[in-house]
Amino acid sequence: MTNTKKINHVAIVVKDIDDAMNFWRDGLGLEMEQIKDVPEQESRVAFLPLGDSEIELVEPTSNNSGVARFLEKRGPGMHHVCFETDDIYGTLEHLDKMGIRLINETPRISKGGNLYAFIHPESTNGVLVELYQLPD
Amino acid sequence: MTNTKKINHVAIVVKDIDDAMNFWRDGLGLEMEQIKDVPEQESRVAFLPLGDSEIELVEPTSNNSGVARFLEKRGPGMHHVCFETDDIYGTLEHLDKMGIRLINETPRISKGGNLYAFIHPESTNGVLVELYQLPD
Repeated sequence: MTNTKKINHVAIVVKDIDDAMNFWRDGLGLEMEQIKDVPEQESRVAFLPLGDSEIELVEPTSNNSGVARFLEKRGPGMHHVCFETDDIYGTLEHLDKMGIRLINETPRISKGGNLYAFIHPESTNGVLVELYQLPD
Repeated sequence: MTNTKKINHVAIVVKDIDDAMNFWRDGLGLEMEQIKDVPEQESRVAFLPLGDSEIELVEPTSNNSGVARFLEKRGPGMHHVCFETDDIYGTLEHLDKMGIRLINETPRISKGGNLYAFIHPESTNGVLVELYQLPD
């Protein structure tokens, strides 16, 4: 089990991406690479790469999504951490056998072709963990 | 302002480091490099490097520290994200001029010789942000 390679991104839920640029881009000096609408997650996401990872600022675009409920309940803040793996199927199978609670038992596919799956915070010391496998 | 180089670590507060190894080391397959007592923060910290960052699992060793109060109030979960910079003094001065609320207006020095400073979540979309400058 050494398929987990790096932190792909840390996702931060914000009320308003444009306001959030004040700290993350102008204050901390991160590069704002792009802002994308992500309709399947009812959100708008800003990607700020640094080192071999990214900070993602996620703004809900509806009131019903998981991200919107997080914001409503807990306020803005860190939402999840995503690890890149080169064997998401093997990792999920391994975790499942260990009794780790998975949100997605099989990977889903993003529009960009990434395989992704979430692991339940109940099994991860309260951290919503995402796994990512990039397309070959 | 391009001094912010990478995510140095993501810190996760846990009740018990040994229990937490079940997911982070045995499940996710991260390498457990070392566990250190950090008396100045009244905690015990496990360091799990991956890519050019680390996951740090932080277990409080007293009931009065900031980390212990976080655990008491919010339960286990992501505590802060730390960015490595090569000019912590310049970054703090820049942030201060922008009106960003700093927890440490001047850097503190860890036992290992790192300069570090925390930025208040009020100015960072709810995220406790740490800055690190490694010794030359």
